[in-house]
Amino acid sequence: MKTLDCFFNPKNVVLIGASETEGSVGRTITLNLIQSQDIRPCYLVNPKRETIFDHKAYKNISDLPANLELAIIATPAKTVPQVLEDLATKQLKACIIISAGFKELGHEGLALENKVIAIAKKHQIRVIGPNCLGVMNPINSLNATFAASSAKKGSLAFISQSGAMCTAVLDYSQTNDIGFSGFISIGSMADVEFSDLISYYGDHKETKAILIYMETVGNTKAFLKAAREVSLKKPIIILKAGKTQEAAKAAASHTGSLAGSDDIFDAAIEEVGVLRARDISDLFNFAQVLDYQPLPEGNRLTMLTNAGGPAVLATDSLILAGGQLAPIKESTILELNKLLPEFWSHSNPIDLLGDAGAKRYEAALEIAAKQSDTDGILVVLSPQDMTDPTGTATAIVKAKKHISKPIYTSFMGAEFIQEGLKILRSHKIPNFPYPDMACETFSLLANNRMWVKKLKSHSGHSFLSEQELLKIRNYLMKIKASGRVLLTEVEAKEVLHMAKIPVTRMFFADTAQEAVKAANEIGFPIVLKLHSSTITHKSDVGGVKLNLKNDHDIQKAFTEIKNAVSEKDFEGVSVQPMITDKGYELILGSSQDPQFGPVILTGLGGVLVEVFKDTVLALPPLSMETAEHLIQKTKIYTALKGYRGKPTTQLAKLYEAIARFSELVSKIPEIEESDINPLCLSDKQLIALDARFVLKNH
Amino acid sequence: MKTLDCFFNPKNVVLIGASETEGSVGRTITLNLIQSQDIRPCYLVNPKRETIFDHKAYKNISDLPANLELAIIATPAKTVPQVLEDLATKQLKACIIISAGFKELGHEGLALENKVIAIAKKHQIRVIGPNCLGVMNPINSLNATFAASSAKKGSLAFISQSGAMCTAVLDYSQTNDIGFSGFISIGSMADVEFSDLISYYGDHKETKAILIYMETVGNTKAFLKAAREVSLKKPIIILKAGKTQEAAKAAASHTGSLAGSDDIFDAAIEEVGVLRARDISDLFNFAQVLDYQPLPEGNRLTMLTNAGGPAVLATDSLILAGGQLAPIKESTILELNKLLPEFWSHSNPIDLLGDAGAKRYEAALEIAAKQSDTDGILVVLSPQDMTDPTGTATAIVKAKKHISKPIYTSFMGAEFIQEGLKILRSHKIPNFPYPDMACETFSLLANNRMWVKKLKSHSGHSFLSEQELLKIRNYLMKIKASGRVLLTEVEAKEVLHMAKIPVTRMFFADTAQEAVKAANEIGFPIVLKLHSSTITHKSDVGGVKLNLKNDHDIQKAFTEIKNAVSEKDFEGVSVQPMITDKGYELILGSSQDPQFGPVILTGLGGVLVEVFKDTVLALPPLSMETAEHLIQKTKIYTALKGYRGKPTTQLAKLYEAIARFSELVSKIPEIEESDINPLCLSDKQLIALDARFVLKNH
Repeated sequence: MKTLDCFFNPKNVVLIGASETEGSVGRTITLNLIQSQDIRPCYLVNPKRETIFDHKAYKNISDLPANLELAIIATPAKTVPQVLEDLATKQLKACIIISAGFKELGHEGLALENKVIAIAKKHQIRVIGPNCLGVMNPINSLNATFAASSAKKGSLAFISQSGAMCTAVLDYSQTNDIGFSGFISIGSMADVEFSDLISYYGDHKETKAILIYMETVGNTKAFLKAAREVSLKKPIIILKAGKTQEAAKAAASHTGSLAGSDDIFDAAIEEVGVLRARDISDLFNFAQVLDYQPLPEGNRLTMLTNAGGPAVLATDSLILAGGQLAPIKESTILELNKLLPEFWSHSNPIDLLGDAGAKRYEAALEIAAKQSDTDGILVVLSPQDMTDPTGTATAIVKAKKHISKPIYTSFMGAEFIQEGLKILRSHKIPNFPYPDMACETFSLLANNRMWVKKLKSHSGHSFLSEQELLKIRNYLMKIKASGRVLLTEVEAKEVLHMAKIPVTRMFFADTAQEAVKAANEIGFPIVLKLHSSTITHKSDVGGVKLNLKNDHDIQKAFTEIKNAVSEKDFEGVSVQPMITDKGYELILGSSQDPQFGPVILTGLGGVLVEVFKDTVLALPPLSMETAEHLIQKTKIYTALKGYRGKPTTQLAKLYEAIARFSELVSKIPEIEESDINPLCLSDKQLIALDARFVLKNH
Repeated sequence: MKTLDCFFNPKNVVLIGASETEGSVGRTITLNLIQSQDIRPCYLVNPKRETIFDHKAYKNISDLPANLELAIIATPAKTVPQVLEDLATKQLKACIIISAGFKELGHEGLALENKVIAIAKKHQIRVIGPNCLGVMNPINSLNATFAASSAKKGSLAFISQSGAMCTAVLDYSQTNDIGFSGFISIGSMADVEFSDLISYYGDHKETKAILIYMETVGNTKAFLKAAREVSLKKPIIILKAGKTQEAAKAAASHTGSLAGSDDIFDAAIEEVGVLRARDISDLFNFAQVLDYQPLPEGNRLTMLTNAGGPAVLATDSLILAGGQLAPIKESTILELNKLLPEFWSHSNPIDLLGDAGAKRYEAALEIAAKQSDTDGILVVLSPQDMTDPTGTATAIVKAKKHISKPIYTSFMGAEFIQEGLKILRSHKIPNFPYPDMACETFSLLANNRMWVKKLKSHSGHSFLSEQELLKIRNYLMKIKASGRVLLTEVEAKEVLHMAKIPVTRMFFADTAQEAVKAANEIGFPIVLKLHSSTITHKSDVGGVKLNLKNDHDIQKAFTEIKNAVSEKDFEGVSVQPMITDKGYELILGSSQDPQFGPVILTGLGGVLVEVFKDTVLALPPLSMETAEHLIQKTKIYTALKGYRGKPTTQLAKLYEAIARFSELVSKIPEIEESDINPLCLSDKQLIALDARFVLKNH
């Protein structure tokens, strides 16, 4: 048995702080626990009572039997260390600390919390809380919370960092018949945190999806690791507060200044396949469809409706949220022709017309569901003169028996459709008050599942060998040993060159032979420039030679430059590649986020990078596929892939460069931040024109 | 009495097609009309019956009394022309054609519709419909629809182009106690259309706001004119379908190709102060707050809450939708300190803490409402252990008596808060299921009202005199007379120059004197270039002279250029200004929209215009203030106003150029499309480097 199982399937439960006192937390927990007394023994501890609600009360923990599995502690914070020590003598495995009064009160509280956790660790007791509402497992009737009621049994795990969100969700879910396989108020996360619970419910076969309300991530690495593994198996939906909060300490580099921490969170969870709810309404919408219906396999929706207007609005939402209208086959149109009046829409949305009765809905639904190109069906009903919401609901329920695809409904209105809604709900068909909302929910969920499928296939291919990485690292360590953390341009470009990211390199040559050698290393065409600390306007004196195409050109140019100036002004030449067509200026950078570690930024570069903020974030390392997905989210991608007759750029080279760069900055932890700007991409080549690396100071 | 009044306050009503037949439209209308028989006489016409529901039935229209005010026609389409002719003999003033079977069926139907409208026009009868649900005026109990029930009395006018949206809204509004001052299914808009009804309800004192569901605009000019006038007085909210529909015939010009017609609609209605609902949910949210509460004077919201999490989520929504958290004065904090437990938030959102009871809510609400910097209050309640939703609702109602600012609530949950919701509803306090939704609604509405206030103050200042416009028009007419519609670069630049939009002009000069004259007209510094059809690499032969600063420089340069080439190669010089610092490249263009007429586009120009689509649309003419508002919506504005130590550009010059350009293209209807790209703006100057004008072909 897994350790966390003791929270959700304990063989016995003990409550420290059981009570009958009206309005007390202990009373509510007692009442909740004794409800399932016949399923598992429940020991109530209260030093002052013989019985509580006619159940035996234990005066001391020492009076309890051995081998305790789950304890709920609802006594004042300062008593908790001793209580835990006492419980440890009974081989306790898991403990929920309801009590508040720990780190949320500052230093003193934090010290107390640390003490409690130290005791727990010593005795290998896992802890949920402190400062939480508790835990429910509706599947086996465990309610170890001080909520006034119990969650319904179902297939969702809900994990919340806010007790108030728990009670609100609980109340909504009871009215709307949404059921849970787990319901956890996670509190301060002093021990058990999101990562633990995501892993637990990832393996939990009764759980179809995991919904989370989050304020802080906790252990970021563990969270992302768990989320990455579990989201491949089942949807994880997170509602997180703080989109507009000031970004966490902005890094000094250009890259860092663009990356607010919420943006990084957004990027990070997308990469591991988590779907972020935009608002509370989203969370409830997802809850309903996830508990009720199968997951969509794709994003093509078929709509049946008795009204044009609402279906047009819904189409807008579907498309804007990234979904598609399912195509309709000619044969389906012929079938529908037999069923529907002459003036039906002959396309998707399928307009059954204002006088559509229950039978017409049922027959059309069966025809539509047969289509292989459809991934889901939305049935829209607006209350018109001839409309029969109750009959239509029954018809949908009947048709649904033969349909394995997700079916959503949007019966619009209120009183008139109440009976219909009850029928739909009792048969697990999710209804949305407005059809556009249904389309958004479908699109977002379907696109998440399609993205997760892609994630599964992403390669773990490594571009840089251990040897190459070691070489680069040694190079950097040498610079650091010399007392510098900021690399020169030549050094930064050398690092890129070692990582096989194309870069304009610059060599210095004192002789024509050296210049020829450098030119051959760089590749032609070449620019030769006078290297001189006295002459600034080099082109005025004939010190710049462009577009040199071979060894002969180089030798000739070297001689000309040398002869053009006096001996004392000549300090050799610089040898650089000649870039004739820069193409588009991109940026590729990295910074360190205090929470997420290295973060990659890429997108539009050049001088307008901060104006357009056409950049995207991701956590390294990135495969070529994730790099592609990333670049596709930028606007400049439109230009990169070719538009208005302009040729496509060398995108594969860009994806490889991003993959290599991300490997570089994630596998060499000494890199604090870095920037390639501009990284020029044309239809002929990819080349970094400037680069900057800063090493960690410690 | 206004003509449209006959639809909403008729002295008598006649129904053609009255019926008792179960399931017929005529029956429902009959039942609805006879309900208010005691308020106004209602004549039922049916050739086959003596009585209908115990009311006298008239066999023929000729049997009816004279001076009829409103007729409802529910007989087959083909009978309508004769019915209307007959009704005209009774001096009918207004008519609602319920019947379908007109232009929605194609050519034949359209011909019938035209015939009906011709008859109506001949007899000065106004028509609503055909193909509609009818009209209600809940204020005087008129229900001339075939809806199954009547709208509640209230302060909203709802106008819908979809009958299904009408019935859905009706059903929702009854359950949620939202009331109407008018409820109109507008149908095909063969006569009465949006513009008429907006004007009517603009003057209607019982109407606080106008809500519209729109599929097509109808007469665009009339609509915009009415909306512009009325939105200054009361909010107009429009939900319009078709955001993702393919744009109407894209104009050939660059500008046109960017402007999808929904984007133009969006731009056009914003300019006249209309607020666009993003989805059906928005429409209902606005309906509730507009019917229930006063309008916010500003966008600063104060939140009271018993839970941190939901308030943080709500803050995100508030800020993202453009609202602000109201600041809290020190004195208010001191007052709240006396009331609240030690650990309250000491800032807005005001966290009353989880154990907040009704009294605490009431006292805090009264303190918060006193603050002059607050434009609205949101009370958030999450169902926790000590929470008393019913008592809190009563407390809010009590406090509200002394508060004139808008108060919204968000009681979260379902069963537990039902009693509370009833109390709130019956006292016209709008509740939102989720607090983030409440914040969005508040922000959008408040920003609309703030924008409308700005619109009121916008100047109607004209930049171009009648004389100047005439001069430009004559210039263009001369070009057209010569058989061309596409202006040369020199001509296009001349037009801008005449409109006093700074432009790089180009003159040709054969002599040094001419060159000096041209240079003085253009302004220094100047570039002189050899004009030669034989020599292409002009700079190689010394044919380009840069940065000429005075007459002497020009004369010298002219002589040098002339002497540099043989006589046969010299065809004079071109004189152009020297632009050293281009600054930012913008675009300013115009195109013709089939529906809205001339449309202005501006924003980021240069080669990336289509990639970033950082452009905005507006309908001319534009004042400098609207030009400013427009530019502020672009991203490039961040750069224009100066960032990262870069200086501010000459924004006032840009706004004036936009105002002048918009006047030019709106007052000279011969201009089909035009483009200034790039229009360069730096910290020193604004200058158009290239321009293009196309005239209308007809």
